[in-house]
Amino acid sequence: MSTIEQLNEVSAVKFRTEHDTMGDVQVPADKYWGAQTERSRNNFKIGPKASMPQEIIYAFANLKKAAAYANAELGVLSVEKRDLIALVCDEVLAGKLDDQFPLVIWQTGSGTHSNMNLNEVISNRVNVMQGKKIGEGKPFIHPNDDANKSQSSNDTFPTAMHIAAYKMLTDVTIPGVEKLRDALKAKAVEFKAVVKIGRTHMMDATPLTLGQEISGYVSQLDHGLKALRNTMDHLAELALGGSAVGTGMNTPKGYDVKVAGYIAKFTGLPLRTAENKFEALSAHDAIVESHGALKQIAVSLMMIANNIRLLASGPRTGIGELHLPENEPGSSIMPGKVNPTQNEAVTMVAAQVMGNDVAISVAGSNGQFQLNVMKPVMAVNYLQSAQLIGDACISFSDHCATGIKPNYEGIKNHLENSLMLVTALNPHIGYENAAKISKLALKENKSLREAAVELKLLTTEQFDEWVKPEEMIGTLK
Amino acid sequence: MSTIEQLNEVSAVKFRTEHDTMGDVQVPADKYWGAQTERSRNNFKIGPKASMPQEIIYAFANLKKAAAYANAELGVLSVEKRDLIALVCDEVLAGKLDDQFPLVIWQTGSGTHSNMNLNEVISNRVNVMQGKKIGEGKPFIHPNDDANKSQSSNDTFPTAMHIAAYKMLTDVTIPGVEKLRDALKAKAVEFKAVVKIGRTHMMDATPLTLGQEISGYVSQLDHGLKALRNTMDHLAELALGGSAVGTGMNTPKGYDVKVAGYIAKFTGLPLRTAENKFEALSAHDAIVESHGALKQIAVSLMMIANNIRLLASGPRTGIGELHLPENEPGSSIMPGKVNPTQNEAVTMVAAQVMGNDVAISVAGSNGQFQLNVMKPVMAVNYLQSAQLIGDACISFSDHCATGIKPNYEGIKNHLENSLMLVTALNPHIGYENAAKISKLALKENKSLREAAVELKLLTTEQFDEWVKPEEMIGTLK
Amino acid sequence: MSTIEQLNEVSAVKFRTEHDTMGDVQVPADKYWGAQTERSRNNFKIGPKASMPQEIIYAFANLKKAAAYANAELGVLSVEKRDLIALVCDEVLAGKLDDQFPLVIWQTGSGTHSNMNLNEVISNRVNVMQGKKIGEGKPFIHPNDDANKSQSSNDTFPTAMHIAAYKMLTDVTIPGVEKLRDALKAKAVEFKAVVKIGRTHMMDATPLTLGQEISGYVSQLDHGLKALRNTMDHLAELALGGSAVGTGMNTPKGYDVKVAGYIAKFTGLPLRTAENKFEALSAHDAIVESHGALKQIAVSLMMIANNIRLLASGPRTGIGELHLPENEPGSSIMPGKVNPTQNEAVTMVAAQVMGNDVAISVAGSNGQFQLNVMKPVMAVNYLQSAQLIGDACISFSDHCATGIKPNYEGIKNHLENSLMLVTALNPHIGYENAAKISKLALKENKSLREAAVELKLLTTEQFDEWVKPEEMIGTLK
Amino acid sequence: MSTIEQLNEVSAVKFRTEHDTMGDVQVPADKYWGAQTERSRNNFKIGPKASMPQEIIYAFANLKKAAAYANAELGVLSVEKRDLIALVCDEVLAGKLDDQFPLVIWQTGSGTHSNMNLNEVISNRVNVMQGKKIGEGKPFIHPNDDANKSQSSNDTFPTAMHIAAYKMLTDVTIPGVEKLRDALKAKAVEFKAVVKIGRTHMMDATPLTLGQEISGYVSQLDHGLKALRNTMDHLAELALGGSAVGTGMNTPKGYDVKVAGYIAKFTGLPLRTAENKFEALSAHDAIVESHGALKQIAVSLMMIANNIRLLASGPRTGIGELHLPENEPGSSIMPGKVNPTQNEAVTMVAAQVMGNDVAISVAGSNGQFQLNVMKPVMAVNYLQSAQLIGDACISFSDHCATGIKPNYEGIKNHLENSLMLVTALNPHIGYENAAKISKLALKENKSLREAAVELKLLTTEQFDEWVKPEEMIGTLK
Repeated sequence: MSTIEQLNEVSAVKFRTEHDTMGDVQVPADKYWGAQTERSRNNFKIGPKASMPQEIIYAFANLKKAAAYANAELGVLSVEKRDLIALVCDEVLAGKLDDQFPLVIWQTGSGTHSNMNLNEVISNRVNVMQGKKIGEGKPFIHPNDDANKSQSSNDTFPTAMHIAAYKMLTDVTIPGVEKLRDALKAKAVEFKAVVKIGRTHMMDATPLTLGQEISGYVSQLDHGLKALRNTMDHLAELALGGSAVGTGMNTPKGYDVKVAGYIAKFTGLPLRTAENKFEALSAHDAIVESHGALKQIAVSLMMIANNIRLLASGPRTGIGELHLPENEPGSSIMPGKVNPTQNEAVTMVAAQVMGNDVAISVAGSNGQFQLNVMKPVMAVNYLQSAQLIGDACISFSDHCATGIKPNYEGIKNHLENSLMLVTALNPHIGYENAAKISKLALKENKSLREAAVELKLLTTEQFDEWVKPEEMIGTLK
Repeated sequence: MSTIEQLNEVSAVKFRTEHDTMGDVQVPADKYWGAQTERSRNNFKIGPKASMPQEIIYAFANLKKAAAYANAELGVLSVEKRDLIALVCDEVLAGKLDDQFPLVIWQTGSGTHSNMNLNEVISNRVNVMQGKKIGEGKPFIHPNDDANKSQSSNDTFPTAMHIAAYKMLTDVTIPGVEKLRDALKAKAVEFKAVVKIGRTHMMDATPLTLGQEISGYVSQLDHGLKALRNTMDHLAELALGGSAVGTGMNTPKGYDVKVAGYIAKFTGLPLRTAENKFEALSAHDAIVESHGALKQIAVSLMMIANNIRLLASGPRTGIGELHLPENEPGSSIMPGKVNPTQNEAVTMVAAQVMGNDVAISVAGSNGQFQLNVMKPVMAVNYLQSAQLIGDACISFSDHCATGIKPNYEGIKNHLENSLMLVTALNPHIGYENAAKISKLALKENKSLREAAVELKLLTTEQFDEWVKPEEMIGTLK
Repeated sequence: MSTIEQLNEVSAVKFRTEHDTMGDVQVPADKYWGAQTERSRNNFKIGPKASMPQEIIYAFANLKKAAAYANAELGVLSVEKRDLIALVCDEVLAGKLDDQFPLVIWQTGSGTHSNMNLNEVISNRVNVMQGKKIGEGKPFIHPNDDANKSQSSNDTFPTAMHIAAYKMLTDVTIPGVEKLRDALKAKAVEFKAVVKIGRTHMMDATPLTLGQEISGYVSQLDHGLKALRNTMDHLAELALGGSAVGTGMNTPKGYDVKVAGYIAKFTGLPLRTAENKFEALSAHDAIVESHGALKQIAVSLMMIANNIRLLASGPRTGIGELHLPENEPGSSIMPGKVNPTQNEAVTMVAAQVMGNDVAISVAGSNGQFQLNVMKPVMAVNYLQSAQLIGDACISFSDHCATGIKPNYEGIKNHLENSLMLVTALNPHIGYENAAKISKLALKENKSLREAAVELKLLTTEQFDEWVKPEEMIGTLK
Repeated sequence: MSTIEQLNEVSAVKFRTEHDTMGDVQVPADKYWGAQTERSRNNFKIGPKASMPQEIIYAFANLKKAAAYANAELGVLSVEKRDLIALVCDEVLAGKLDDQFPLVIWQTGSGTHSNMNLNEVISNRVNVMQGKKIGEGKPFIHPNDDANKSQSSNDTFPTAMHIAAYKMLTDVTIPGVEKLRDALKAKAVEFKAVVKIGRTHMMDATPLTLGQEISGYVSQLDHGLKALRNTMDHLAELALGGSAVGTGMNTPKGYDVKVAGYIAKFTGLPLRTAENKFEALSAHDAIVESHGALKQIAVSLMMIANNIRLLASGPRTGIGELHLPENEPGSSIMPGKVNPTQNEAVTMVAAQVMGNDVAISVAGSNGQFQLNVMKPVMAVNYLQSAQLIGDACISFSDHCATGIKPNYEGIKNHLENSLMLVTALNPHIGYENAAKISKLALKENKSLREAAVELKLLTTEQFDEWVKPEEMIGTLK
């Protein structure tokens, strides 16, 4: 938007005067947010607007509601206030207030502004629920003293990070990876009898079945899922109750366990209070740890998508052993071209996740004293990776993996021509004699059988008895 | 959105039937995009919708218009068609068609779908301009044969990447970094006489002036700007004219130079045709190179923002040598707290850029044969970094750097107390004797003067003559 | 070394003629290695000589011995040959043949050359054991047919990687991290009653104890150790038995389980055969996974070492709340300077590990078909990280952590001066009134008590009753 | 080595007592190093011994000699002392004292210990030159007051980094990359008439020549060399003269320029004093900048080596369009196998450099106040990358690139079979009709000509006139 357009936009907006401990602030009259949100909106014009992930906002809504319940239960908040706070939180969770959260990722590193954004919206929305105008009179719910009771940005933001991360893994990432894993597993079974040539160093090697080849991908994803689940125990730890520096100052006794219980109840996720709140505020190693597993899955996906693409390359001038589903015309200039576009999306996602891992590690290593103030950048990279992996796995599964078909002709040609079938002769004539055969065959463009007989190392009958590709696919299950 | 909500949404939309080389596709009736865009929209539900950066769309508009002009000049497109294509491109550039580009980053790695999105919008929009309905009759401008004439996704997408990247550097990144550089330079001059203690290894060292200290930051940004500008020569090279594989097939002779000329004219940027089109399609080392310089600036900014924050730490329990502007209440729980929030935003941006650099390098290393199919992920990471650095520098300059003030009292206390003033005695009494003085002073909590005299290594008068912090700030300019 | 010096060196060496399937090779007469090792030595002059880690060589010795035992047990190798092979392997493990392994990391990506290096040394060493000269006559142990029986580089090298990695974790990394964790835990207990100011955003915050602060570091390392151990199950899987492409071709039935058993026995490590050999050859996700946990620990160490350094900064112009042991004179120019050098070594190690993680991820993502040919680079980065973390933790523990002492005077001064003690007033007078007090105190350089009374918000007595730092350290354990 | 072995080793060594400002230290009697070196040796047992790169030691020798000359010229050091210092430095440079530098990378982050190692060796070696024993009497050359005159570790170590880095680029990296560039350029010319099929998305595309394909690689390396040279201006800036904190304290006027002049003279490199010494001590952005270009080259090499490997894949079941030199037997189990081992070494080097770039960026971002104390880790990663790239390019050039040969039969088959020759028909029958032809050909396994005629879109004669692969290789030079 040009500067003039911005001015025009501004001129159309009516403002009200809000107040915080630093003084007055002009806030758009029709918005529920207050002074501190508006300060942040004005002071941090970095990147696209409203970039703080919605998942974080929703996680905040759950934890604010949980805090209200725990506070009420412990006698430091009235039930009336609790219910009003909860009412607004439910509206947030229902998506009714999505346009009330205008802040960006690139604000204060504690996420204080987004915490206050929630507090202010709760306070002002209750005002309206009570029949007053936004900002009219003294609010029944004070942003700090009520909505933020027994809380600090320092323990709420990391709690919101963990809630949002855990939920994304549960709802999107794991189901996505599992779906792809299952799709590939079905293919591994379907093609368990399709004998094909193996390749090592990109060069002809001994045979295996297509099912065996794909079973390696399945195993990668199984290991990845296990690794990811291993990290969720740390991710399940919630900082809430640590308050400003981890001591739990200004929180009632027993609050940390209770509030985690309410969060677990409201989200349906097995979350619990962190054992050590100092770690939970000043370090975000749980995010580092868990994203490490996401990165591992990305590494696996890069390898899997790339290999399936290589096997399907062609149709006439590549490896040509697989057919992939034809989803879109592949070229704006080359007619009839079809490309492995799902594989490309997956490998791009993998590159992104590998980059995100570095952003998260750098951020994670930069905690100072009682607080790591790189929280939003860690949250946004984590959530992006978790979503992209889940979405990409679904997409790749639906539009590629389930439709993979062998190109039987291509597979057969390669199998019959490969020189490395000669390996079957090692136990009979030794490695060095076998090497003579394959070298002669390559040099004079002959079959292995012809070369073997010419070298008088064995008879045609012996060759046919000993070199059977279908028997070279292993003693392993 | 739930599946049911999606279905509801879908049910409210009317569709028309579009056609491409793979068959029929149902496209929302009121949208200018066509079959191929719709296929991509359906096949790639990865991450947020419409995530392909607007800068790429606008760069495409410029290059489509330029191609039309070059084609017309070389006699392969009528002037009538040229002008109609240009008209739509101008509408795109004016932001009038922003809702016609629904595709995501995570599509085909060549960006073919976004290229076709432009081609289809141009074709259908012209139809409407000519008084027909969308999709009615044979289009006067064919998406492939006219809008895409003498083009391939393979040369248009990298061209759009370079246009958008060069423009972002020119409009946002460089002005932003320069603004911060200038703000710091003014502070270096303003504080050139403020003698303060130096610190190495985070420990007391010999003095320097605050102006000298800040001049180091200025020098970092100067070197960063130079490094960034060094990369722009490579970035100025445009792939357009390379066509499908770099040979320029199906493009008229002289087209590559002409079309680059038109792009330079329409964008006002010093862009030119690439010397080697094979490099320009299959590798995106220009993006890798240029982002390397962005990453260097990020490393500098991390260091600068972190140091200014350290110097301003406190107000009472930190280093406390600088006052930063107070922009927002700093805590939802600790009253009166003010935090270095701009520094935090800058360091978060730096971490992001350091991560993006890895995403770009991984993507850049994965080009195969005549094409690198990691283009969109490279573009989006580059543009994000370039924008964030520019925006963050402006924000940091406006809301922090220009308001930096010395805390003269803190500076004076530290200067007077530092043990490392003893270094001034080296030329007079030698390193080892000087060490005895500082060690005694530290051990017995004395002043250096007291310790020196107690050790009978020099007189009070000699101490005062030789140890003058204001004379320890160097022989260098 | 200059070319002339190299020639001189060469001229002093006597050679013998060795032979492999590609022809004759001149090999230094007094070395046990053979033709293929010599080819690699000549063809890969990249980086320092003999850079393949010794841990890999030793792991190979264990696996070659184990393979001989498994082969003998399954009836495909004579007991005589088994024992001779084992004898040489034991010599390797005793360090007697260290100068027989001249190859570099940057060879073939399967590590075939190093596998053959072992095979050739075994073959020739047995020759000499049998009273013959190196290379004299037909060897009793053939490098390929005996020493390499039932093996391929493709399954031996990844097996050696896992053995070496698992052993390094067990012997060096985990004991190192545990030692540091224990040292810090002792300090957390020792200082559990030392009340000090907390800091968030590098700014004054509410108090905690020094013991609480350090307990956060302990928790980080505990979580890191747990994360690392989580990865060891995958690392325990051995590829051996997969043979060339994962099918187990040319290996006897049951061999994979048996050979893993012997490896476990010989190394004393709980290793086992991999469930899926295709994954174990073509992907090295176990290395990616496990190094992810090493990287997490590096991130923690960076944060911990940096924070301890910050707390100890000074002695007179920094934070100055801790004394660290004085280990070396700190400056070649500033007399009496002492620096936190152990912290610096630790942070440098952390940066290295963060870089190594990217090298490993990039390498891990580049497996093609049945083989990942980035094995040596993955092994060397993994082993370096695992060793550096272990060594650095021991060094940091011995020379820094165990000697940490509070600077009680500095701690007391900061605690008394901090403005954020005002937070204790929130429950009594509300957040906004409390903010007024701290702001006035800061502005007019007063104590909180003075400001509170001046603002008539409470009495001196109330202040002293409500603001007790020692009661602000939390309700949490 | 076990503890007992270490004790044994120690017991065999005789010690002398050395002294520094912290007290007495036992130093091996026959070593030239002194107390501070020994302290570091004992305090930093991290990773392999003596790991500080020799290039850094030699760079130090050059700068110590230069400092002696500048000091003498400016009247603060006697000519006698100058010449003695220079004599020892020349011995170091001649490799005569290589075993006198036992320290590791992972020491203090300023490299002070290695600076003192040089100072102590100079001092003690002069003692011996003068007929005294090591450590006998007061040394004629004092380590701090003479050998280190007008120097600080803080300006010497970064100076040594820049000298070593610049020299490595000049002697190894650039000649290596140029050699490979030239080898590929020769191939681009040699194969300029070899028409072959192009591939995009790993799928059949329009033709180009093999020379054109390789010219893209040449262009990548040309751009990489240019980018690398662009960074050398920053790298040429020397910190020396900045002294402890950048002010030049305790250095004579004009010293910085003079000492840089001597360094340039002694090394033969176009080095000069840094414009801003504060930047030169506290930030190492020059290393970050220059390594960014090394990383770019690594990205290019990864892509080039990978593509050549893909083109040479086979021999019978891959793409099979190139023959690479056969350098070593490729498999310990598969007879006659030959692998693209040089390509594998290059891609492993590329992965390492991509990792090193992150280590350097993380380290570079961690400068505090007047000093970045991550110097050794930055130096060692830079030097490794620069050497590996240079060495790998020589190796790849000598053992692979110069021996590349086309597999004319494979190239011909692919060219004739590719469906994308149909693109030549676009200008004649339009994109949609051309698509019909290629789709029919693929579906019914026909030639394009057959399909075209069957669809009655053109005649056989027209097809043969319009579809000429040799005319599809472009209008570009």
